[in-house]
Amino acid sequence: MGFVRIESVDNKKIKLAASLHQRKNRDKEGLFLAEGVRLCEMVAESLWKIKFALVTDALLATERGKALADKLADIAEVCLVTEKVFLKAAATEQPQGILLSVEQQKNSLQDLQAEENPLYVVLDVVQDPGNVGTIIRTADAAGASAVLCTKGTADVFSDKVVRSTMGSLFHLPIIGGLQPEEVISFAEEGGCQLLVTALDESARPLYERKLAGPTVLVFGNEGNGVSSEFLSAGEKTYIPMVGSAESLNVGVSAAVALFEALRQRRYG
Amino acid sequence: MGFVRIESVDNKKIKLAASLHQRKNRDKEGLFLAEGVRLCEMVAESLWKIKFALVTDALLATERGKALADKLADIAEVCLVTEKVFLKAAATEQPQGILLSVEQQKNSLQDLQAEENPLYVVLDVVQDPGNVGTIIRTADAAGASAVLCTKGTADVFSDKVVRSTMGSLFHLPIIGGLQPEEVISFAEEGGCQLLVTALDESARPLYERKLAGPTVLVFGNEGNGVSSEFLSAGEKTYIPMVGSAESLNVGVSAAVALFEALRQRRYG
Repeated sequence: MGFVRIESVDNKKIKLAASLHQRKNRDKEGLFLAEGVRLCEMVAESLWKIKFALVTDALLATERGKALADKLADIAEVCLVTEKVFLKAAATEQPQGILLSVEQQKNSLQDLQAEENPLYVVLDVVQDPGNVGTIIRTADAAGASAVLCTKGTADVFSDKVVRSTMGSLFHLPIIGGLQPEEVISFAEEGGCQLLVTALDESARPLYERKLAGPTVLVFGNEGNGVSSEFLSAGEKTYIPMVGSAESLNVGVSAAVALFEALRQRRYG
Repeated sequence: MGFVRIESVDNKKIKLAASLHQRKNRDKEGLFLAEGVRLCEMVAESLWKIKFALVTDALLATERGKALADKLADIAEVCLVTEKVFLKAAATEQPQGILLSVEQQKNSLQDLQAEENPLYVVLDVVQDPGNVGTIIRTADAAGASAVLCTKGTADVFSDKVVRSTMGSLFHLPIIGGLQPEEVISFAEEGGCQLLVTALDESARPLYERKLAGPTVLVFGNEGNGVSSEFLSAGEKTYIPMVGSAESLNVGVSAAVALFEALRQRRYG
């Protein structure tokens, strides 16, 4: 199959792709980037809309890469670019020769479908993109219904978040830019208990909590924890620690709490 | 208190410190670096031997920094350096003006003290320094007895590992450079069950495992999993997943398994 060729780094598409590493441009265009063979395969299998794809000869020389490019050609414009042009658009230093410009899918709390026993994950100003991406991946694996992010949480469409979700970004609804009040009302209206992770004298250990019913679990900022609105509205819980560590990484806290919920739901 | 002053980037100590960002130099000198106020406070509180400290005027201008420098002066040589000299030695771009050169503490399996109900964590060629550091921190919090690393696992004295352990490096024994056979014999001789994380048809779910007795838990390489020696010697277990995610981050797997052990031991 013949693909459109791009040989200039000044091409419009290349300039657009290169600009999407910055949040302000992603927000303006409503687009983001996905790089790498496995991740791009997952986008192609999802219902997310691909604006265009950039591929290199090196990718087409592999059987798996060729199959992916052909599949993409059915649903999007695929451009064959030189190594030099590709490097201009890509973020990774040793790229695999495949990059997609994808339309951002924006969800709202109203779009979420009612579930019998939902488990929602709230990221309240979690700032590290690696943490946000890992928690989305973990939430997917633990069967969470959606991930809700308050304003101030790392952009889920940033390169690092997209990469560290390992494709889970395309598996469950993610809602950004929320205010704590909206999430608190959402929990109340949905009949969910609101559990807030906090190291606080009035908190109760995670293992004394019942997580089998409808639950909203809130995880806070790496340095400052959960914001005061959630602390006053929800019930506080903590993960018991027995060693000398002062705290847990927020991605670790989320993993422990989400899989405790899964255990109670499936093995309780 | 007066500190030794260093104003040249060509000073021997500065050159030594700058060289310790590379593994071959750390191995040769038997030293590593700790940076940042909180981490250096933790080293000062530990029994680890400090070779020398570099501090800046900016550090001494803060009450907490001054107190730390004075405390360090009782146990090590403290050198007051200019910002420019400090930046030459430091790894971080926005340093807090405190850096320690610390002697590597090497442990061996024979040094480990017998415990009634030990829980050992094995990292089998885990390559990402962030994962290794996070797992050491999590192991500390979950009350693990020690962390055993096979040859090929990221150097625990690298800047990134030291930073991401958040001080847990100084709380529990960490043993590096092991062969799988040594770990397997160690488990047998200590009467520990050897549980190996693996996604495999013959594996049993984590939640059907009894983790309250003496246990060695093995986590494998990010891409290839646990090595064949462990797979044939141990019992395979997996973390059940219900969503569409293909796998979990190894730091997440370790968190889930270690806190399930803690739950069974304390809340079972």
